Amino acid sequence: MSGNSIGQNFVVTTFGESHGVALGCIIDGCPPGLELTEADMQHDLDRRRPGTSRYTTARREPDEVRILSGVFEGKTTGTSIGLIIENTDQRSQDYSNIKDLFRPGHADYTYQQKYGLRDYRGGGRSSARETAMRVAAGAVAKKYLKAVHGIEIYGFLSQLGPIEAEHIDREQIEQNAFFFPDASKLEALDEYMRELKKSGDSIGAKVSVIATNVPVGLGEPVFDRLDADIAHALMGINAVKGVEIGDGFAVVTQKGSEHRDLMSPEGFASNHAGGVLGGISSGQPIVAHMALKPTSSISIPGESMTVQGNTAEVVTKGRHDPCVGIRAVPIAEAMLAIVLMDHLLRHRAQNQHVHSETPVLGMRS
Amino acid sequence: MSGNSIGQNFVVTTFGESHGVALGCIIDGCPPGLELTEADMQHDLDRRRPGTSRYTTARREPDEVRILSGVFEGKTTGTSIGLIIENTDQRSQDYSNIKDLFRPGHADYTYQQKYGLRDYRGGGRSSARETAMRVAAGAVAKKYLKAVHGIEIYGFLSQLGPIEAEHIDREQIEQNAFFFPDASKLEALDEYMRELKKSGDSIGAKVSVIATNVPVGLGEPVFDRLDADIAHALMGINAVKGVEIGDGFAVVTQKGSEHRDLMSPEGFASNHAGGVLGGISSGQPIVAHMALKPTSSISIPGESMTVQGNTAEVVTKGRHDPCVGIRAVPIAEAMLAIVLMDHLLRHRAQNQHVHSETPVLGMRS
Amino acid sequence: MSGNSIGQNFVVTTFGESHGVALGCIIDGCPPGLELTEADMQHDLDRRRPGTSRYTTARREPDEVRILSGVFEGKTTGTSIGLIIENTDQRSQDYSNIKDLFRPGHADYTYQQKYGLRDYRGGGRSSARETAMRVAAGAVAKKYLKAVHGIEIYGFLSQLGPIEAEHIDREQIEQNAFFFPDASKLEALDEYMRELKKSGDSIGAKVSVIATNVPVGLGEPVFDRLDADIAHALMGINAVKGVEIGDGFAVVTQKGSEHRDLMSPEGFASNHAGGVLGGISSGQPIVAHMALKPTSSISIPGESMTVQGNTAEVVTKGRHDPCVGIRAVPIAEAMLAIVLMDHLLRHRAQNQHVHSETPVLGMRS
Amino acid sequence: MSGNSIGQNFVVTTFGESHGVALGCIIDGCPPGLELTEADMQHDLDRRRPGTSRYTTARREPDEVRILSGVFEGKTTGTSIGLIIENTDQRSQDYSNIKDLFRPGHADYTYQQKYGLRDYRGGGRSSARETAMRVAAGAVAKKYLKAVHGIEIYGFLSQLGPIEAEHIDREQIEQNAFFFPDASKLEALDEYMRELKKSGDSIGAKVSVIATNVPVGLGEPVFDRLDADIAHALMGINAVKGVEIGDGFAVVTQKGSEHRDLMSPEGFASNHAGGVLGGISSGQPIVAHMALKPTSSISIPGESMTVQGNTAEVVTKGRHDPCVGIRAVPIAEAMLAIVLMDHLLRHRAQNQHVHSETPVLGMRS
Repeated sequence: MSGNSIGQNFVVTTFGESHGVALGCIIDGCPPGLELTEADMQHDLDRRRPGTSRYTTARREPDEVRILSGVFEGKTTGTSIGLIIENTDQRSQDYSNIKDLFRPGHADYTYQQKYGLRDYRGGGRSSARETAMRVAAGAVAKKYLKAVHGIEIYGFLSQLGPIEAEHIDREQIEQNAFFFPDASKLEALDEYMRELKKSGDSIGAKVSVIATNVPVGLGEPVFDRLDADIAHALMGINAVKGVEIGDGFAVVTQKGSEHRDLMSPEGFASNHAGGVLGGISSGQPIVAHMALKPTSSISIPGESMTVQGNTAEVVTKGRHDPCVGIRAVPIAEAMLAIVLMDHLLRHRAQNQHVHSETPVLGMRS
Repeated sequence: MSGNSIGQNFVVTTFGESHGVALGCIIDGCPPGLELTEADMQHDLDRRRPGTSRYTTARREPDEVRILSGVFEGKTTGTSIGLIIENTDQRSQDYSNIKDLFRPGHADYTYQQKYGLRDYRGGGRSSARETAMRVAAGAVAKKYLKAVHGIEIYGFLSQLGPIEAEHIDREQIEQNAFFFPDASKLEALDEYMRELKKSGDSIGAKVSVIATNVPVGLGEPVFDRLDADIAHALMGINAVKGVEIGDGFAVVTQKGSEHRDLMSPEGFASNHAGGVLGGISSGQPIVAHMALKPTSSISIPGESMTVQGNTAEVVTKGRHDPCVGIRAVPIAEAMLAIVLMDHLLRHRAQNQHVHSETPVLGMRS
Repeated sequence: MSGNSIGQNFVVTTFGESHGVALGCIIDGCPPGLELTEADMQHDLDRRRPGTSRYTTARREPDEVRILSGVFEGKTTGTSIGLIIENTDQRSQDYSNIKDLFRPGHADYTYQQKYGLRDYRGGGRSSARETAMRVAAGAVAKKYLKAVHGIEIYGFLSQLGPIEAEHIDREQIEQNAFFFPDASKLEALDEYMRELKKSGDSIGAKVSVIATNVPVGLGEPVFDRLDADIAHALMGINAVKGVEIGDGFAVVTQKGSEHRDLMSPEGFASNHAGGVLGGISSGQPIVAHMALKPTSSISIPGESMTVQGNTAEVVTKGRHDPCVGIRAVPIAEAMLAIVLMDHLLRHRAQNQHVHSETPVLGMRS
Repeated sequence: MSGNSIGQNFVVTTFGESHGVALGCIIDGCPPGLELTEADMQHDLDRRRPGTSRYTTARREPDEVRILSGVFEGKTTGTSIGLIIENTDQRSQDYSNIKDLFRPGHADYTYQQKYGLRDYRGGGRSSARETAMRVAAGAVAKKYLKAVHGIEIYGFLSQLGPIEAEHIDREQIEQNAFFFPDASKLEALDEYMRELKKSGDSIGAKVSVIATNVPVGLGEPVFDRLDADIAHALMGINAVKGVEIGDGFAVVTQKGSEHRDLMSPEGFASNHAGGVLGGISSGQPIVAHMALKPTSSISIPGESMTVQGNTAEVVTKGRHDPCVGIRAVPIAEAMLAIVLMDHLLRHRAQNQHVHSETPVLGMRS
């Protein structure tokens, strides 16, 4: 299987470029009988959509998804689900000036060298616009996980440049344009972003994503551990440079007596592990974090090269997010949902008749 | 494909438990004509082997690998390579006391719940002993990458608890039992480990792994990006809780003008990206880091539970590494080698006749 | 990977039902730089299209394919190619009478039992209409195979009921509505089909497909032999009940001295093997045959059952091919092309630098 | 995934050459809790083993399988199962004379050209000896299918050259060295084989394999239909040139009114379909046939070529089966078992909660 698919039993395959005719995807393996309409996907697509606030790109796409197959009389049929989003606001002319230019920090150079040619319009296939289809597919997974297992998935911006969330108030997340869970920092964020836009620069961010009510047992030893597949899915999001499960890099300075999550019939005493032990979900909440680099699409001139190999200076104009981490929140949720869905089905395949007499633990209250 | 395989065109599948008869693996897709003997794998196996220093487990295994197939008259034939390592120092009796006990921070509980039963001897399939076969398979990949492309892969311990390497002296790495690149800190490390062993506790670590001379173009958009597959491979190593590419989590507070690697016909000016742009290798060195948790096998008592659901106290006796990060260095190298090998073959499949007229860049000197 | 994909390095994934909004597919792994337009696919789509002769269904679909991604300025970019065909002549009302009915010999019953519900309109996903996308994807493979290796693929109807082709005149194939290579039997065919339609019955057929100029070396031992993958691809076409490579079932009564294809520096003396030895292409023409059952959609009443489990009588009305074998010719070509394309890329992945000093053999003239 | 694996959720990967150190395989995805010992596999291995009658090769191999992992205290653990059979009767010297020679009808030429080198000893990886591991893995699948679903799988020799079974007496199959179900023809078979051996020639055969009690619903539309995967698995057996499901090639001359299996609440009236409708099992017995070519290893001289490209004459000496079809019976059973097992798990993954209200049909008595 080539690189545009993810999953083994719940398989999502995408196509589409930033400025092509349309984006699309095929979901293969969705269980039959799930009630599904376009509206189930549109909510998350709208959360990811550009042009919704002054902190994100001004490109305006309705990002309207259509179900082309796999749903009959309002329910999934078990056959492959085809989805499409037409590109409407393409403005290809914006990009003609970078036809022969490699933007530093972008995929322009690597695509050109890998394939010998590239769709230079808006980054082509390397554009984050491609993630719209992931969000749509993730919404299908989310709906199933919620409906059948009560699994809930939510993400938030845990840090933007120097501004870190200190309190995680889940209610707050959807109340602001940053998906930020700490209301006390919103003013500072707003101020920071205004200054940033003025300077023409961009900033990195950290996004967290959490799944609750995940049953114990998901994850396949030894290579397709649940945490390994989460790492694959999150690191595969544009601009991501780091992934953590549970305490992540903080474990480097932890001692064993401090890190291990003690357990008793009353449940786990802590969740340093982030919900995964030995690559298998433990029933604790799954906790993952990812670091997103500052976009290289900035208006500050930078040294670069032309396709022909000559020196050039690049200034990115046009419509770009000063912090790509913000809109990455629904993408991270979608990717986590896809991974959990796939592992749920993989687990079922092998372990349908498994009964353990050991009681299932939760977190201690 | 179930979870015991990794790769698409260079596929490694492993079997074996800590205290079973043997460990083994099959390498499927190795190009024909590569000179290969057991000695090519033994060097790295010896580097990973337990019992080589007082800082690692006292379990003594010769870890002698045998080639069972796929090599004829000293060369790979292109058919599947079967490898085996027999377990010789098993001491199953050491583990009888944990038969009905879940060790906190281990996979005992999750395996029991996933499968309804588990091989409790030394962790069974969840033991890091399984990684011996990864090291063997990785050595085959390493040899090919070096022979055909001059690619070199090396790893080191970049941090152990509070002690961080400040200078990376590649020559130093293999001169000490820690794979530590900074000779000025060796005494401090030794001191720290002695105290740690005395306390019966364990400590986390950070391991770095680097590949040089990687050709531009490896990595498959969009899900199987090179960095995503590296994250999958490294997060799939026992005890790993975080993975970074290039600057990793440091990007959260970086600005775009600071992070982007400027380029010119003379080469790249920096390598914040860690050798991957848009999920495709850029020709810069691949740089990855991983965080390893402190092992939960410590002699400090901890609250836990029995298989039957009763409260219990756990004290891990036996032979355990106080810092599993140390021996993870050759494992990280092996996993990076396997990923690069797989992507090299995947790239060849699709792009055999690609010619870009753009000059290939290196790092500026 | 679930069941709607075929291939490992050249992966085709399809979606769409007979009476849904649209059919579509994603081709993942197509090499970059191939000139490609809709016209390249339309020719084969027109050959498969219903309504082109009085021997096939009267359903009229333009079957106009659109490229949605993966092609830029007339060339493939190496990224995933999205294709779509909108359904225009759906007439869902034709099928309301079979909503609660299982047609004998159809997939109605098995889909209902597998999924608990089914899209009953025109067979839904089980309809041969789905093969339109295979033909489109196959045309891309065909074009590449021809352009880069000079490989030619052609199919024909070798038998329809009792009427068998005795001479294979390749020129003749495209001159008649049957894809029949023996002009001397055309009148008999026409006569037979007229009688058949009058009787309301249907008839089986045998289709042959041949590839020439296939390089030696394609096919992966041991499970993914070239012939095994051809069998998989052809048996996966609707209504196919048998597949042969080379002499096929005739080998049952052959002796070894008769079957083996002698070889000398002048080439192979015969091609009983059908171009595959040990699962690997030999350089001889690939020759495969498939048997297609008579469609069960006939107007002769038959005993059946309702979804609720009651006895019922079925009479299929509407627009159906009396011999589905005829239109299966371009489908067989497409599937063979997809398999060869995939194996070409798989072979390249592993064997890019292979040089055998043995001369390459052809067929003796 | 490269070519030495079969299956998606129940994955079997093999290694080993005819005259290498050992054969082995890994089974990944076997459900936990299945009681399993070497004896469960040995029975079928003995049925396939050479040297058991005067009609098969005189090579004597005990073919003793050992379980190396994945089984603990007599039960499968859900982790990967490693199996090994050591080669003991290798007699490599027998083959030195064919080192530089291509045997017509063998894989010698294609392996040499594909890989640039080959293990010439006894055919290396292309030898049917490799199928021993398939039989071992198939026995695991067989045991599970029988234990959990009551599925039974049995094969037989339905034709050897001109001698065809007219009555299928299942009891008879294991009573003779031919796996032949028609006792009235045993004398003729014996006579035929004696003459054949005298002449130094070989003969083709047809093998049938049947599975009963298969639940309705197995098979994944559209490419991985159950029949397509059976075709893949059977065509992947050495020497197979044709595969049929149900009536197979006889459908070419059948009419729709004759072929369709009528159904009613009492069950199916016939089984022309061979148990598969629309690629999904119908609950009727699965019926498949395969044609095996006469082995090219015969003592009648034949024109051939050397590795260097010179004319040569080949006479195969040594120990060879005059009819490879006989020993293919347990191999066909194994492959069918592996395919059914894989599809059972795939079906479970997606359809765990499916309930159809339609009654399940059997065959009418």
